[in-house]
Amino acid sequence: MQPLKLALGGLLLAASSTAAHADALRDQANAIFKPIPEQTTGLDAAQVELGRQLFFEPRLSASHVISCNTCHNIGTGGADNVPASSGHAWQKGARNSPTVFNAVFNVAQFWDGRAKDLEEQAKGPVQNPVEMHNTPKNVETTLRSMPEYVAAFEKAFPGDKQATSFDNMARALQAFESTLITPDSRFDQYLKGDDKALDAKEKKGLQAFMSAGCISCHNGVNLGGQAYFPFGLVKKPDASILPSGDKGRFAVTKTQNDEYVFRAAPLRNVALTAPYFHSGQVWDLEEAVTIMGTAQLGKQLDAGEVSDIVAFLKTVTGKQPQVEYPLLPPSTASTPRPVD
Amino acid sequence: MQPLKLALGGLLLAASSTAAHADALRDQANAIFKPIPEQTTGLDAAQVELGRQLFFEPRLSASHVISCNTCHNIGTGGADNVPASSGHAWQKGARNSPTVFNAVFNVAQFWDGRAKDLEEQAKGPVQNPVEMHNTPKNVETTLRSMPEYVAAFEKAFPGDKQATSFDNMARALQAFESTLITPDSRFDQYLKGDDKALDAKEKKGLQAFMSAGCISCHNGVNLGGQAYFPFGLVKKPDASILPSGDKGRFAVTKTQNDEYVFRAAPLRNVALTAPYFHSGQVWDLEEAVTIMGTAQLGKQLDAGEVSDIVAFLKTVTGKQPQVEYPLLPPSTASTPRPVD
Repeated sequence: MQPLKLALGGLLLAASSTAAHADALRDQANAIFKPIPEQTTGLDAAQVELGRQLFFEPRLSASHVISCNTCHNIGTGGADNVPASSGHAWQKGARNSPTVFNAVFNVAQFWDGRAKDLEEQAKGPVQNPVEMHNTPKNVETTLRSMPEYVAAFEKAFPGDKQATSFDNMARALQAFESTLITPDSRFDQYLKGDDKALDAKEKKGLQAFMSAGCISCHNGVNLGGQAYFPFGLVKKPDASILPSGDKGRFAVTKTQNDEYVFRAAPLRNVALTAPYFHSGQVWDLEEAVTIMGTAQLGKQLDAGEVSDIVAFLKTVTGKQPQVEYPLLPPSTASTPRPVD
Repeated sequence: MQPLKLALGGLLLAASSTAAHADALRDQANAIFKPIPEQTTGLDAAQVELGRQLFFEPRLSASHVISCNTCHNIGTGGADNVPASSGHAWQKGARNSPTVFNAVFNVAQFWDGRAKDLEEQAKGPVQNPVEMHNTPKNVETTLRSMPEYVAAFEKAFPGDKQATSFDNMARALQAFESTLITPDSRFDQYLKGDDKALDAKEKKGLQAFMSAGCISCHNGVNLGGQAYFPFGLVKKPDASILPSGDKGRFAVTKTQNDEYVFRAAPLRNVALTAPYFHSGQVWDLEEAVTIMGTAQLGKQLDAGEVSDIVAFLKTVTGKQPQVEYPLLPPSTASTPRPVD
């Protein structure tokens, strides 16, 4: 039976009946958040399959060592759980690697939203000298040197004169990455009507998350990822957490209003993706929530509130993607050699 | 119907009847080689499952970036297809990474056989400062910090007072790696009686492989991996291929007879595991075969023989393992942090 939906205002949250309270809380939550869909639709199966190979393909990097999965590890929440990734020649990335899980639902990609979608995003790390250190030309030479890839690209992109291209690599990666979603978290079960999916503390945390104002930025299907906000809106955090040299979205728009502006972090699976913030300098989720309170809301959240909010945030961990490790075609005599 | 098995001597290889010839060739081959079994038996399912997690676990490395799969990539023949692996801080390994596939059938592990089995092997790279750069103590602290790992170790090693240990890590890795076998190659189908599994050129290559003497070292289930031989038995190859600084098994036994002695490379899936030799300096399989001819057999194999042998070697690529990427438990507050 579907729970009765009522148009309840915020005031009713304080209603004394537990049942009514639960419904009101859920209704308010449903007005702000949305469950992750069970699966992504409209994807081309051949592109997804090719994308799965490319996602694990170390030969997209100049060294033949680094793949997408190196920094967006399928086994660890779609991220690499280090402050900054180690790229080509052990160089460090400038920011913490964001999770690829549910990234398809974000308004744009990267911490500063500089890529409009996953297709555009996929081209970045491949060419970044401190990440995969490759070039579109060398990627195309590499992929075209292996007949199995040429056949897979032709199947995935029929009608293209030159199907095996850097652009189509990015399209296939987008297709595969769009399948990396994590439905059926306990929070989503709750949103869909299962009262028992959250316990009392977690519901208290959900309510605190909404009433404290976290939802101003962390809303929608991904609890974030939808818009841009200054980090340190009310009070700038410590320079180790918000390094002065990284001005965030300012580098994209060159407008002063965008200094230290970042895309609100999507919080799906946040319990799996420490360390936190673009700087990756905070390992503890309670500490991260506390910092958000002072920096963004100007509030010193008390220990109980923080603990409740963290309990709630642990319920947004969904069913992790099941991915079979792909077999990759062998290099041929014309495959470019790895470089150091 | 099982093909009739006859006790045929080498002379009968020259018999004029094609059918008899095929049988004689197969019988001779069956006396020298063995098919890869369809599956490894006697393994504990809980150990295999834990080993699958550990194989992909980057937190076995000090940096939290390098896993077993980094250098023994399931998708690329169980090796990393670079001359020498990039380890901690991008340091290079001393030798080419050997494939993990079918390694369970080798007499011992590493190019110089310094580990008696996969369990002993697994402890090496984890502690090697140029590879994963970790310590047994830190590995144990790491694994014990995650309740999901503790439960998985207790399930895999019931009765152990302290199940979550470095030793049991190695045992679980051995269990999982023992499943990474590649049965059902066309050569194995041929050994089992399917005449059509190899074409005429491939059979010619098999015959050349046997009659030229390659089978002195490359025999058994893995076409090698069973015993130790000097590289450059007849004629030392170029110093780029056999660097004078790496004396092979001499470092293990300290006996002069073992200078430049290595375990004969197992040739299963050799078409997938370029570059070749312990130095990883030869990318082309035909070139590798030619070098083996002069270095080990004192023979200048002609282009036709080399081409036939390579055609044969391409038939020993088996069915590659299908592995689901494991979900790994999240770090906790007591998990040691990654170090650079």
